[in-house]
Amino acid sequence: MVRKEDCLKQIREVIDGILSTVDEEGNPQSRVIDIMLIDEETVYFLTARGKDVYKEIINHPQVSYLNLRANKSVRITGIAKKLDNQKEWIDKMFEENKYMNNVYPGDARYILEPFYIEKGEIEFFDLTQKPILREKFTIGNWEIKEKGFLISEECIECGTCQDLCPQKIIKEGSPFEIAQNHCLHCGLCYENCPSEAIHRIE
Amino acid sequence: MVRKEDCLKQIREVIDGILSTVDEEGNPQSRVIDIMLIDEETVYFLTARGKDVYKEIINHPQVSYLNLRANKSVRITGIAKKLDNQKEWIDKMFEENKYMNNVYPGDARYILEPFYIEKGEIEFFDLTQKPILREKFTIGNWEIKEKGFLISEECIECGTCQDLCPQKIIKEGSPFEIAQNHCLHCGLCYENCPSEAIHRIE
Repeated sequence: MVRKEDCLKQIREVIDGILSTVDEEGNPQSRVIDIMLIDEETVYFLTARGKDVYKEIINHPQVSYLNLRANKSVRITGIAKKLDNQKEWIDKMFEENKYMNNVYPGDARYILEPFYIEKGEIEFFDLTQKPILREKFTIGNWEIKEKGFLISEECIECGTCQDLCPQKIIKEGSPFEIAQNHCLHCGLCYENCPSEAIHRIE
Repeated sequence: MVRKEDCLKQIREVIDGILSTVDEEGNPQSRVIDIMLIDEETVYFLTARGKDVYKEIINHPQVSYLNLRANKSVRITGIAKKLDNQKEWIDKMFEENKYMNNVYPGDARYILEPFYIEKGEIEFFDLTQKPILREKFTIGNWEIKEKGFLISEECIECGTCQDLCPQKIIKEGSPFEIAQNHCLHCGLCYENCPSEAIHRIE
């Protein structure tokens, strides 16, 4: 059982992860961003005002952040927001991350802008477990978007899905049931159900 | 001096990186995707037809892929395209990446779809060098989008930018000149030029 604090701890220990944004043309952009601080609820980071990523977050605040360590990923999908008291936050972040002075020595640090994730969802995904494991947590006021597939009452209990499932995580029943926390979302059950009883969660 | 083949080699050696796409609502989405094969020109990967990422690539083929090892990142921004001869490619990828059988045993592999990056740009970014180093390369027929700042003829050669630059990569001259391959794109020179001679590359 993984907890939200374990996810935040991984993010801080690994430090660098990938922040994805969308640009003015609606295309995805990504780059390495270090997480400078965490607390019980969220993560804090910096970027420079001259960078495209700064403009992108301001224009379109929904971002995706992904951190990976030894086949366990922690992903945050949510809204990035600028922090007030800019200088105070920058100084605190540099105090806790002294290596930042090698990149932005002296007062150069003030070209940076501090951000945090105001609200969103954290997804932990562990590929080392069999079956794989997913866990979701929220940051702030956010409705988690479920993904994957559901088996409906149209299920004829034939067992086709159970046999095909690469992770073997479909349980018998009326209807059969997908263990959502262990599902790859591959779609093999969905494509092969003879009674079309399996639906994509929208 | 880094070469394109070094970038592709890093991507293959590390195997896992982060693929960013945009979803139907225009928001960025990211997840770990392993690169299954490389050749001299591009990279090859798989995803399952049931996953959101599959739908996202089909609807909006421009993606961003980022691979990180020891503060050196390789990013590919480009167009993902489905491969023909699906089964042949899947079998080849599983042959070269036997661990994939643990996730998709037996014929479950055929729920996957093989893709490659048809065209785009590779950016190598090395934060371990002082100053930092960037190099760009193309995949297929692609025009590289330059970023950052340029010093124009309006430069009064006062040296303000040179003093402020956190990486110390602005050379004297008429006008002064930014060493583009070493620039953080932080914008400190741009914000502080007394003659507004520094312009963002658009």
